[in-house]
Amino acid sequence: MKLKVFADRGSQPSRAVLILCKANGIEFEEVQIQLAKGEHKSPEYEAINPMKQVPAIEVDGKFRFFESHAILRFLATAFPGIAEHWYPADVFKRAQIDSALDWHHSTIRRGSVGVVINTTLAPLFGRPLDPQAAAEAEKLLSASLAKIESFWLKGDGPFLLGNSEPSIADLRG
Amino acid sequence: MKLKVFADRGSQPSRAVLILCKANGIEFEEVQIQLAKGEHKSPEYEAINPMKQVPAIEVDGKFRFFESHAILRFLATAFPGIAEHWYPADVFKRAQIDSALDWHHSTIRRGSVGVVINTTLAPLFGRPLDPQAAAEAEKLLSASLAKIESFWLKGDGPFLLGNSEPSIADLRG
Repeated sequence: MKLKVFADRGSQPSRAVLILCKANGIEFEEVQIQLAKGEHKSPEYEAINPMKQVPAIEVDGKFRFFESHAILRFLATAFPGIAEHWYPADVFKRAQIDSALDWHHSTIRRGSVGVVINTTLAPLFGRPLDPQAAAEAEKLLSASLAKIESFWLKGDGPFLLGNSEPSIADLRG
Repeated sequence: MKLKVFADRGSQPSRAVLILCKANGIEFEEVQIQLAKGEHKSPEYEAINPMKQVPAIEVDGKFRFFESHAILRFLATAFPGIAEHWYPADVFKRAQIDSALDWHHSTIRRGSVGVVINTTLAPLFGRPLDPQAAAEAEKLLSASLAKIESFWLKGDGPFLLGNSEPSIADLRG
């Protein structure tokens, strides 16, 4: 399969996809979409990802997918070169990894984006900084990071869910 | 497999799990966790779901999972009675459904919860109503619903992704 990854290395979800590919020796073409230059809002990129976000992928010049977690799941199951521990076929193990990925959306991701946007990046996108929103996001982020320690990293191994090797959930952790 | 579903029928993610089970004739025991009574914060329930949210499931009295999308994926792949169209084995079709589910977190769900909490439910959880937060959530919700029309429902079929039969993403749509 011929793979193109549309990414901005300043975007954490972009890096997660790039890391999975590189860690597993998957060949791909990286197409840089610079958020700070508004390249994600161009009509050309909207044809790749109608949601105007990075990352996105294109497979064999015709299949296009967006949402980083969906991309990670797809790559781990569609590309035979990816080691089993990233997203095991076992439905019970997979459910735990899915649970960690889904939990991430409304906790770590929402908190960290809220902090970074509202303390630093907002003016770059034409919006004012918002100290109150930043403080609320920081509260959510702190509580979520505490859960990483108290729940997700419980167990013997050094990775999420106590695993001895990383899963795709660790790329978003 | 013996299945327990911990749910509050007032919670949309809870209903998604209940509907998938009922639509496919899966036998399960429904354990009602009443959010308005704070039952999700009890030590007994925290032992089921450390994140103190509904829904959660317990399988064979020992495996416990939370996060509704992870539960939907698990049920659709672990229970043989669930029809293929809910979460097809094909990795390309699955990636589209995963993309719709993941997109939902930061759009429809975040917007709708923001509206309902900040216009109505907040006092029930000991927090004040917040008209400004409600207005921002409504803006996000409107933009997201427009994307449902302009993108997700494009195609011939009546379901998300233009499908002729529902997938697990339709339960959250």
